Amino acid sequence: MRTSQYILATLKETPSDAEIISHQLMLRAGMIRKLASGLYTWLPSGLKVLRNVEKVVREEMDKAGAIEMLMPVIQPADLWQESGRWDQFGPELLRISDRNNRPFALGPTHEEVITDFVRKEINSYKQLPITLYQVQTKVRDEVRPRFGVMRAREFTMKDAYSFHLSEDCLSATYERMHQAYCNIFERLGLDYRPVIADTGSIGGSVSHEFHVLAESGEDAIAFSDGSDYAANIEKAEALAPTETRAEASKALNTFATPEASTIEQLKAKHGVKPHRGVKTIIVYGAADEDEQRGLVALVVRGDHSLNELKAQAHELVHAPLELAKEADIIAAIGAKPGSLGPVGLNIPVIVDHSAAIMADFVAGANKDGEHYSGVNWDRDVTDFTVADIRNVVEGDPSPCGKGVLQIKRGVEVGHIFQLGTKYSESMNAGVLGESGKNQMLTMGCYGIGVSRIVAAAIEQNNDDYGIKWPTALAPFTLAIVPMNMHKSHRIPDIADNLYTQFKAAGIDVLFDDRKERPGVMFNDMELLGVPYTLVIGERNLDNNQVELKNRRTGEKLMLDIDQAVTEICNAINGN
Amino acid sequence: MRTSQYILATLKETPSDAEIISHQLMLRAGMIRKLASGLYTWLPSGLKVLRNVEKVVREEMDKAGAIEMLMPVIQPADLWQESGRWDQFGPELLRISDRNNRPFALGPTHEEVITDFVRKEINSYKQLPITLYQVQTKVRDEVRPRFGVMRAREFTMKDAYSFHLSEDCLSATYERMHQAYCNIFERLGLDYRPVIADTGSIGGSVSHEFHVLAESGEDAIAFSDGSDYAANIEKAEALAPTETRAEASKALNTFATPEASTIEQLKAKHGVKPHRGVKTIIVYGAADEDEQRGLVALVVRGDHSLNELKAQAHELVHAPLELAKEADIIAAIGAKPGSLGPVGLNIPVIVDHSAAIMADFVAGANKDGEHYSGVNWDRDVTDFTVADIRNVVEGDPSPCGKGVLQIKRGVEVGHIFQLGTKYSESMNAGVLGESGKNQMLTMGCYGIGVSRIVAAAIEQNNDDYGIKWPTALAPFTLAIVPMNMHKSHRIPDIADNLYTQFKAAGIDVLFDDRKERPGVMFNDMELLGVPYTLVIGERNLDNNQVELKNRRTGEKLMLDIDQAVTEICNAINGN
Repeated sequence: MRTSQYILATLKETPSDAEIISHQLMLRAGMIRKLASGLYTWLPSGLKVLRNVEKVVREEMDKAGAIEMLMPVIQPADLWQESGRWDQFGPELLRISDRNNRPFALGPTHEEVITDFVRKEINSYKQLPITLYQVQTKVRDEVRPRFGVMRAREFTMKDAYSFHLSEDCLSATYERMHQAYCNIFERLGLDYRPVIADTGSIGGSVSHEFHVLAESGEDAIAFSDGSDYAANIEKAEALAPTETRAEASKALNTFATPEASTIEQLKAKHGVKPHRGVKTIIVYGAADEDEQRGLVALVVRGDHSLNELKAQAHELVHAPLELAKEADIIAAIGAKPGSLGPVGLNIPVIVDHSAAIMADFVAGANKDGEHYSGVNWDRDVTDFTVADIRNVVEGDPSPCGKGVLQIKRGVEVGHIFQLGTKYSESMNAGVLGESGKNQMLTMGCYGIGVSRIVAAAIEQNNDDYGIKWPTALAPFTLAIVPMNMHKSHRIPDIADNLYTQFKAAGIDVLFDDRKERPGVMFNDMELLGVPYTLVIGERNLDNNQVELKNRRTGEKLMLDIDQAVTEICNAINGN
Repeated sequence: MRTSQYILATLKETPSDAEIISHQLMLRAGMIRKLASGLYTWLPSGLKVLRNVEKVVREEMDKAGAIEMLMPVIQPADLWQESGRWDQFGPELLRISDRNNRPFALGPTHEEVITDFVRKEINSYKQLPITLYQVQTKVRDEVRPRFGVMRAREFTMKDAYSFHLSEDCLSATYERMHQAYCNIFERLGLDYRPVIADTGSIGGSVSHEFHVLAESGEDAIAFSDGSDYAANIEKAEALAPTETRAEASKALNTFATPEASTIEQLKAKHGVKPHRGVKTIIVYGAADEDEQRGLVALVVRGDHSLNELKAQAHELVHAPLELAKEADIIAAIGAKPGSLGPVGLNIPVIVDHSAAIMADFVAGANKDGEHYSGVNWDRDVTDFTVADIRNVVEGDPSPCGKGVLQIKRGVEVGHIFQLGTKYSESMNAGVLGESGKNQMLTMGCYGIGVSRIVAAAIEQNNDDYGIKWPTALAPFTLAIVPMNMHKSHRIPDIADNLYTQFKAAGIDVLFDDRKERPGVMFNDMELLGVPYTLVIGERNLDNNQVELKNRRTGEKLMLDIDQAVTEICNAINGN
């Protein structure tokens, strides 16, 4: 491709509305443009990267035995009503009406459509197991679309669905998909982690997320330095400490804390070390037989944070977790948040393992502007339950038993689920089993955020000059940059000739034939992240040489012009 | 691919709701399934055919210098308001609202979005001309979705847009696109015609449609037997006859026609030959200065039909053409449709060329239940205009001057337009011209109905047994059908071995490894339209032979098993 016949559309300035680096660089490199909030046009170079991702995804899915099909973007409401998600899904499900006022949704996912398809088309156990997938446009009407294609309203996903007659069969396919996902991210050249994950609104039991590691990632993931263990922090178990609690050595005392309602303020104004105090959070409890919800106190160590998923999984707590309203707290306890503590409460108290081994600690006195020091469990608080309700922190022992946890940030680019019979039961999807009886289908689903991968890859691969694509993702593998071509007699022919040779060798080459200053051209190629740039300049030509620059390593190499094509092809093809 | 690990989903019965053969066969062959009215899921074999079309389309577009990009399906309303089409487009434009009640449309086409893109990104004449394209999902909320993917509500289109500074430059790209379209349909192995077409709601001046010829086609196209001339019948010019009018030889007489209000009834009950009578159609006239619309009479020969596009293009006629209401006709003329004629009217009369050379003809007497015989122009009707307002018929001289017209039916699969400045003017899309002044862009647009091609190809390529794919479109090139494999000692190994060899040779092969009777397997492969089937049976193996069947020619060939792979690969690759 010649830049003169291409839309490069690079920008010198960083657009002010782009917060994260991948969004900035995708705009600056001319990969995408915003059409409306959360809606992006893919420019030619951006689309090439997207297609590179799709290609690898398809090849690995095919290799794993999945079969590609294509379901509509527009889905009839009745299927969503049947599964129950028409009501469960919030406004992220973009609901529309056709000219006859019939309700439809723009699909954010296709569990309903595929389950409907399979219950109609698959009738016998002989046709199972089967894994079907598609690469399709998805729509989610995000409350706050942002970060470019990272959280867009219209985006490309690969979604796969597998159907089985047994949990064992599902597990086997799940493992194969897990491996296919690893192959995909490996081939794309990304630093990634599969992590144990929560199943969220999709449902099911076992689930893994795949994260591309990047400091800007929205998710925190915990992984062991001594094993393969990795989990989304919302799912990572905090082991109960092996230490036993020290004996109580201090008496219970109140002290005035009029201007200290947070752990930070207690530290600043009263010298209380965070790990010597506790946080008490009041939430609503699980409804009783009369549908009444009381309050529950959750207690974690001052330097720890509450894990909402763990807390709401406790039988005493209402799910989804809901912080109690201030009025309800005052009515029940007599104090406002900021001075709450476990002493003397007449509501259930759930204490995190780490908080439960503290002695002589500080807690709110349940009186505005007052705290207790010298609090001790059993002596001062007699009725409480102990559970894992906090987020893990770096240095915690790994729940696998080996090593300690580290925490990194990641961008979720894939998510696989063992759904079980959630959809097949609500939608009555069964087949004739070997015994001649109808058997409910067991299901798995496997998603990859194809367009999001493009952004995640940039988050992980960039520097001050722009994008540093792994070769498998790059929009072009090689750029030819002739310096001051229009002033030279020999450069145009040489550049043209090399361009022709690289094209013939099957290299995806961008020939920068613009009448621009060399600096402008170098900047554009670096911004665009082309892995190799071949520079043709008068001075080097005097020695019959051209220069090859490696975008990722920064390495520069002088090549004899006669050897250039062969050597560069070898370098690119990894020979 | 092994059928045992695939979804073949063939049906023995023809689904009752499928009217045309392509719809029936796509359902029976397991290529598509209906999700809801006008919404179809593409099954694996159907998707492969769709991808085959996409591949050829992309390759030819790239070769013609067009650059691929991807615009969102969801488009903001404000762009459509700017172009004026938000109001012009009927309910086919599926309008939606997001969670904040902002209006959007699901794109039936992308002129607005691309024009908006180009006005922002292309600033200088140096970046022109440019042709951009995408292969994208389109949505049209059809009033009557039907014929499967032939007229669906969600479908795949390739749409391209070119931008220029002059009409000449546009013409040159238009010609290149015209050629690219010919290459595409040629490579797909389809019998097609580019025809002169109307520009319809897209707008512009010059336009061609590309039709795949098929008896079931919705469009009639006229083409010369003596030249390349071809036009959609709505656009084909009927030349004025060279014969002069005969002298009047009969007197004007009325005769009672109480039960004859149509040309057919006049023939049946009164022996009037259709070409000896005229049809008189009353429509509304163009509005006058006071916005009043009178009536206009349109007269064509009895065996001809009115061409609405030609009629509404006449300066006296209101566009779009609207038949006058019966009450208005009675008020102005005193008779109901069925007894109308040109004699004694006090409204403008437009007479088709062929009707204008008639003498002594029959026409309604403008009195219910009466007709005139012996009507003659000038003598009985003095005030009238002559124009081309009829559809051409077979045998008409070709407007190109060479040969006579034939009429065939076609399925429109492509449409290209010279739009001119329609969108660039309404949306103010200009660039800095060479002179330093702002210059309005001139635009072309070029569409191909990618998913519709699949159906059109089947309309043209089928027999009683199923689909007969041209090789470029086929979901699989070769089927291996081992007969009674599970009863044989040697067939499984031989079949497996051949399957492996064909795969290694890059042939897209379907190995029918089901435990089915040979008849079932043959029927499925014929229905699916696989171009070649390799049959492996005990009897032929005794002679070390296998049988190759050609789906299109019906030819059967015995091959030595050792030579089979080489010979079949040669046949497939056309060596």
